[in-house]
Amino acid sequence: MKEPVGVTITGAAGQISYSLIFRVASGEMLGSDQPVIIKLLEITPALGALRGVRMEVEDSAFPLLRDIICTDDAEIAFKDSHFGLLVGARPRGKGMERKDLLEANANIFSLQGKAINEVASRKIKILVVGNPANTNALIVAKNAPGIDSKQITAMTRLDHNRSLTQLAQKIDSQIDLIRRVTIWGNHSSTQYPDLHHCLVGDIPALSLIDDEWYINNLIPSVQQRGASIIKARGASSAASAANAAVMHMQNWVHGSRDEDWVSMGVVSDGSYGIEHGLVYSFPCTCADGDWNIVKNLKINALSRQKMTATQLELIEERDAVAHLFK
Amino acid sequence: MKEPVGVTITGAAGQISYSLIFRVASGEMLGSDQPVIIKLLEITPALGALRGVRMEVEDSAFPLLRDIICTDDAEIAFKDSHFGLLVGARPRGKGMERKDLLEANANIFSLQGKAINEVASRKIKILVVGNPANTNALIVAKNAPGIDSKQITAMTRLDHNRSLTQLAQKIDSQIDLIRRVTIWGNHSSTQYPDLHHCLVGDIPALSLIDDEWYINNLIPSVQQRGASIIKARGASSAASAANAAVMHMQNWVHGSRDEDWVSMGVVSDGSYGIEHGLVYSFPCTCADGDWNIVKNLKINALSRQKMTATQLELIEERDAVAHLFK
Repeated sequence: MKEPVGVTITGAAGQISYSLIFRVASGEMLGSDQPVIIKLLEITPALGALRGVRMEVEDSAFPLLRDIICTDDAEIAFKDSHFGLLVGARPRGKGMERKDLLEANANIFSLQGKAINEVASRKIKILVVGNPANTNALIVAKNAPGIDSKQITAMTRLDHNRSLTQLAQKIDSQIDLIRRVTIWGNHSSTQYPDLHHCLVGDIPALSLIDDEWYINNLIPSVQQRGASIIKARGASSAASAANAAVMHMQNWVHGSRDEDWVSMGVVSDGSYGIEHGLVYSFPCTCADGDWNIVKNLKINALSRQKMTATQLELIEERDAVAHLFK
Repeated sequence: MKEPVGVTITGAAGQISYSLIFRVASGEMLGSDQPVIIKLLEITPALGALRGVRMEVEDSAFPLLRDIICTDDAEIAFKDSHFGLLVGARPRGKGMERKDLLEANANIFSLQGKAINEVASRKIKILVVGNPANTNALIVAKNAPGIDSKQITAMTRLDHNRSLTQLAQKIDSQIDLIRRVTIWGNHSSTQYPDLHHCLVGDIPALSLIDDEWYINNLIPSVQQRGASIIKARGASSAASAANAAVMHMQNWVHGSRDEDWVSMGVVSDGSYGIEHGLVYSFPCTCADGDWNIVKNLKINALSRQKMTATQLELIEERDAVAHLFK
């Protein structure tokens, strides 16, 4: 059995975390040979609700769970942690402008970035789930100069999974026969689900579907899926978001499938002409606990236009909060 | 890869199922080589909410999930199913007498038992989670004469897990060093958490704790834990109940640990003098997809008194609904 590792989960009394914590504690995320210490961070008014969550985690008698810590202090929550699942974020309140929302979250993620910089393991792997996820991840990176920015990622795996399913249903395929779906850009309605490199078995996906369906159905349906879920459930995605977080981390730690890739929001190295330093979703392969952007894919005019549009949104988001890290 | 198996989950739009469905679809319950067809049963008014759950399951892109069916028709839900997780039950309404509650649930579980008898795989493994779980399981068994009653069980694993954790915390032990905890009887406040055979490593648990703490703290705390959770969460146990269901099925299918046992509500064969035919929780070992009651444990006077008390409650429950299956 390995040494226990610390896993910090923020927004721990919220709905996504209520699904996520149990899947992490059961060993599904990191493996059945990896004991975990789970550290749950919440804002002070939510500590009462968090107590109920803690009781249920205890009642689950997870053999791999070595300890569980509940706190409203980021420096306690991230102390020596090897994994950070940053789920909690300020939701958009009534009458709140987009800029106010960005700034409110920038403040939260600045503080957490600073705490991570101070106390976390230098090897910590961070996944930002809380929206706006890409820009929140950028803020964490800017505030944690002592952590390699390769270790700070944002979640677009839910969008990736949604694209897989939409395609699988359209062509009546099993999910696991589909490879090389890509989400480019921001985890927002400007994201670009790209099927130009996608294969079903060994057949190009775009040879199996109409361009018209791809452009006018799949792309907007994936972009707007979050809103559709809210409409159907009366609440935003929770279990499916938690599932995507588990899959993102599973692949990052244990590797992605051969001949396939996953979508991850990562700090751009300038690949595909995307501005250096933006947290942008790219196709990535994972191996040996590391990820790498898939290089040299051909980008056609449609893709370029959509990749640029989502980049522009990310630049705007960054510029709106830049005063906080300049 | 194995042939897909059908897993039916009832009360599928409820909170326990919202945790359970995703853990079943991910492969955690039946294994990463076992494709599943998930069949979700709900009452007609909940089909709208179930649509939202279905969308999130789809958005999870589970490689093992071959199909998902949502229905309000038990004969569609159980058709050819190999596993039945009977989660949905009528909760106690205001002013409802205990007898009314038993009867309302007896009606639900009679119908499901009949449907199982008609259409399910003859090999179906059934776990009743919805309360009163033991008596609901009895009703299923009575209404499904074509299914071996050994295949119909009720969940006391949550109580079992709660006992493990309470003890582990008291003696500051890792959970997985503790073995041979037993829950006897009904999944209710009369249940009897028995530590007389329990070992921590190879040391008898009762040599590590005071009798006074065991009798006046652990036993009532486990018996009343459901109420404590409701108080802390403002809602009943959901993720921890789902987790217990996953563990119950994992053990039944893949076996229990060597030198250990689990607690399962099963149809009594008269072991330990418990009335033949009652669904009563016993210590069980699991191997080769089957369970067996652990025999010949010494029962002292305290245990006998508590085992009899919980048996009496089960007899009362059975008698209250007996007119429905006579």
